Amino acid sequence: MKVEYVNPFITSTINTFETMLKVKLTVGKPQVKREPFPSYDISGIIGLSGDASGSISLSYPKIVALKAVSKFLSADIKIVGPDLIDAIGEITNIIAGSAKKDLIGLNVSISLPNVVIGKDHVLAGPRDVQHMIVPFTSEIGHLALEVSLKTP
Amino acid sequence: MKVEYVNPFITSTINTFETMLKVKLTVGKPQVKREPFPSYDISGIIGLSGDASGSISLSYPKIVALKAVSKFLSADIKIVGPDLIDAIGEITNIIAGSAKKDLIGLNVSISLPNVVIGKDHVLAGPRDVQHMIVPFTSEIGHLALEVSLKTP
Repeated sequence: MKVEYVNPFITSTINTFETMLKVKLTVGKPQVKREPFPSYDISGIIGLSGDASGSISLSYPKIVALKAVSKFLSADIKIVGPDLIDAIGEITNIIAGSAKKDLIGLNVSISLPNVVIGKDHVLAGPRDVQHMIVPFTSEIGHLALEVSLKTP
Repeated sequence: MKVEYVNPFITSTINTFETMLKVKLTVGKPQVKREPFPSYDISGIIGLSGDASGSISLSYPKIVALKAVSKFLSADIKIVGPDLIDAIGEITNIIAGSAKKDLIGLNVSISLPNVVIGKDHVLAGPRDVQHMIVPFTSEIGHLALEVSLKTP
């Protein structure tokens, strides 16, 4: 997977958090994910298909997810319920939708988001596809973007 | 979501388990998923996009996932590691790939599978899209198919 295919998702994550949540993210070093690690409590996952196929996910500790959706909805969300699920899905959707137009030369479409709720779950993908993980830090805590994309 | 769009995934799940795993599944009553329940230990998720967008997932208790991939790989898989992750992803991929051609009038493409590993995790989707859950029982235990699809 070429780095130029990961960068649009990093940029889109930073821009989405800045404009929609008013949260400034600081990006850490993107790494190839070799082990199903680290673990999260809440993840939004969305599939990509078309000229390339893959998926992206945004994953959070529970407290960070609650803070993020509270910012996104301008409301005090205190429980992991339908409001949180919708908002986590929608944030993932906005990030993927905004990034796909910057995948130069690739026409991809996005699926509906799935939201995973489970203490200390991990995400993994097929061994034959490079899976990148990009850590972010912010005033509301840390989160991670994962990107896997199989290009022609 | 029309029932004719769920049936191809049910048929494909039954056929894939029968031909690739030699496991006969008995299908339970498909239900609209209204709560993020039940919980699973291992899920394979794949996105669908194109004329319709959505996702499907196959979810298992840990012991059932180990038995299923042992059958699929004709090997004794005892741990949740790369072999299990690849096989769970591949089973999901085969089911989605086989079903999509039977979505009459809809041209959809599939993303890469994501595998979730986490004791008692639940899956959820956006409130505005109907999310069906289809339980299966078998000699190796129970599993569930979930289908959400937003059609034009």
